[in-house]
Amino acid sequence: MGNIKRVAVLGSTGSIGRQTLEIINALPDRFRIIGLAAGKNYDLLTKQISQFQPRFVHFEDKPQTRLSKAEYESLSLEEIASHPEVDIVVMATSGKWGLKPTLTAVKAGKRVALANKESLVMAGEIITTEAKRNGAQIMPVDSEHSAIWQCLKGEKQKPTQLILTASGGPFYHYSPARLGEVTVEQALKHPSWRMGRKVTIDSATLMNKGLEVIEARWLFNIPFDSINILIHPQSIIHSMVEFIDGSVKAQLSYPDMRLPIQYALSFPRRLANPQLPRLDWKNLKELTFEPPGLNAFPCLKLAIEAGRKGGTYPAVLCGADEVAVELFLSQHIKFNDIARLVEQVLEVHKAISHPTLEEILAADNWAREKVMQLVSGDKR
Amino acid sequence: MGNIKRVAVLGSTGSIGRQTLEIINALPDRFRIIGLAAGKNYDLLTKQISQFQPRFVHFEDKPQTRLSKAEYESLSLEEIASHPEVDIVVMATSGKWGLKPTLTAVKAGKRVALANKESLVMAGEIITTEAKRNGAQIMPVDSEHSAIWQCLKGEKQKPTQLILTASGGPFYHYSPARLGEVTVEQALKHPSWRMGRKVTIDSATLMNKGLEVIEARWLFNIPFDSINILIHPQSIIHSMVEFIDGSVKAQLSYPDMRLPIQYALSFPRRLANPQLPRLDWKNLKELTFEPPGLNAFPCLKLAIEAGRKGGTYPAVLCGADEVAVELFLSQHIKFNDIARLVEQVLEVHKAISHPTLEEILAADNWAREKVMQLVSGDKR
Repeated sequence: MGNIKRVAVLGSTGSIGRQTLEIINALPDRFRIIGLAAGKNYDLLTKQISQFQPRFVHFEDKPQTRLSKAEYESLSLEEIASHPEVDIVVMATSGKWGLKPTLTAVKAGKRVALANKESLVMAGEIITTEAKRNGAQIMPVDSEHSAIWQCLKGEKQKPTQLILTASGGPFYHYSPARLGEVTVEQALKHPSWRMGRKVTIDSATLMNKGLEVIEARWLFNIPFDSINILIHPQSIIHSMVEFIDGSVKAQLSYPDMRLPIQYALSFPRRLANPQLPRLDWKNLKELTFEPPGLNAFPCLKLAIEAGRKGGTYPAVLCGADEVAVELFLSQHIKFNDIARLVEQVLEVHKAISHPTLEEILAADNWAREKVMQLVSGDKR
Repeated sequence: MGNIKRVAVLGSTGSIGRQTLEIINALPDRFRIIGLAAGKNYDLLTKQISQFQPRFVHFEDKPQTRLSKAEYESLSLEEIASHPEVDIVVMATSGKWGLKPTLTAVKAGKRVALANKESLVMAGEIITTEAKRNGAQIMPVDSEHSAIWQCLKGEKQKPTQLILTASGGPFYHYSPARLGEVTVEQALKHPSWRMGRKVTIDSATLMNKGLEVIEARWLFNIPFDSINILIHPQSIIHSMVEFIDGSVKAQLSYPDMRLPIQYALSFPRRLANPQLPRLDWKNLKELTFEPPGLNAFPCLKLAIEAGRKGGTYPAVLCGADEVAVELFLSQHIKFNDIARLVEQVLEVHKAISHPTLEEILAADNWAREKVMQLVSGDKR
């Protein structure tokens, strides 16, 4: 095996999971798939098993079903995440299902390429504490956090400011009235990134950017006051870091998740990969910027407030948002209702400080039920 | 003294020298002036001596004159550059006068904050070889090279591309005919940087950018083919580095030389200095880019060609350019004549490969005389 890293991809059939497999397929002398896990996409997981021949497999829907003729062990997410033969765990499951496996991987001292936002948003305190205690490395996979991480490389001093860029999504210049009439189809058309449905809607509400602020707070151990957001519609500068002398460093590339995925796998090295695009400055005429209007995007404000308050507030934010986004996607509520429902649920939440993982998951459940109650109340 | 670094500023009355003293004045618990040297500005040097009380002084015009009542030793540039009590040598003299002191400082294993372009352009091979042999550190002071240096921090692998940004100067969109009619006054109005007269004209011809390409080649030990130029009129991104995975890092700040000067002094640390401006993203609406038109700016092309050919060609380039710029500033020739004269001199030069410092300085002298001959020939 030599220098080949053994990678387990939890959430291999989602957008990040599939792109992770693309990278690993392109770099066979660097990485090998040892574990795959997916939630619902039986057909794709079966294909992935045939192609990558993993040792360990987990399939959420039918854990006992033999998925293909390949030889593999059926293990739980936690068993894969902590298995001694796994060098890198790619946490690409979506939502709160990522929390327990992330915590397990971190407790096992693994190198974790973390694409699951909820792990740090909902349980940042627990996960970063356990990572430190067990010598686990958390490698950000989000393009924004990867950019910051790249800019911090070799810098020994704390930055004075993190500047997370945001495309602004498809509705950045819409009036509140016009936002109320936004359709699911419109919201799913992101101007620069191709992503899953949930994160695309979260990008349109800017909730996604708010979650990234909370993630950045934990990943880089930096106060909320030192994290700012800048609207940058071209999505070429993925984020920036300001240092104590006023110097700013930025990381640039086309919007393509494969670069931050590869960097999380290869860190501290960088690897040649002809599939990754290079910026063509002949066609990059301008990069534009504007400070975000917090009032136009209440989800951004709600997320940052929940992050500042801490405790179980971020879990409630995530749970309420996930249900609200589902309700919007199934056309039960309007676009503007997402923020309204999340806000109402946060307002009535009785938070717990320094919660356990169980308390975090309970708060998330409470928030989901609360959204459903509010919506049924609306309809009565 | 503890941690306070003792700094000698050679060329203290020029633009870079004065800004270096501003930085040192603002950070008295980090740096102390131990040596000052200037060429012609008697009055300013006298004031600087009173203010900073250096131990060592050199004044080119009247080396024997006592410049102030302060106690100091009169030393040569080389004696200051290699004095055991000097921790950092700031090489801010202009033109070929920087070569010998830079070489002396490098041979003495000093930390050299290098603002003198000619040292690396004319004698890059000698100076980088001696720096390596004697453990000297060359810290770039140019904003472009400082940007690249900052972006390379912590990166262990060679970059695949350096992208030097250029404002394009005041005449970037002028036609050749209109360039012929440019006045000295127009050429001295740089759109974004305040600099000395020579470098301002070199910026307008883009000769300056060509010299920076040659410097970058030596500073970062990178082939010419991997160094590219991008016109960026706002001068906010000071340069960029592309890595093997396609990721690009950029360094940003307002055009203010004090930041790269301070970073060269404080490296690897960064120091808080309230005098250094911070980017205000409320007012930074856009950054624009375009590839340079090499044909419109022949000096850029000439410089890169001279750099590629190596040997004594870059010395001839520098010598011819300096005289041509002087002739333009004194209104003896037109703006377009600068490139024409430099090209003519390069064409008839019989180059020496791997020249000694004496051969380099002789080539520079030959080029200066050749320009004067050509100009007198023109007038006959």
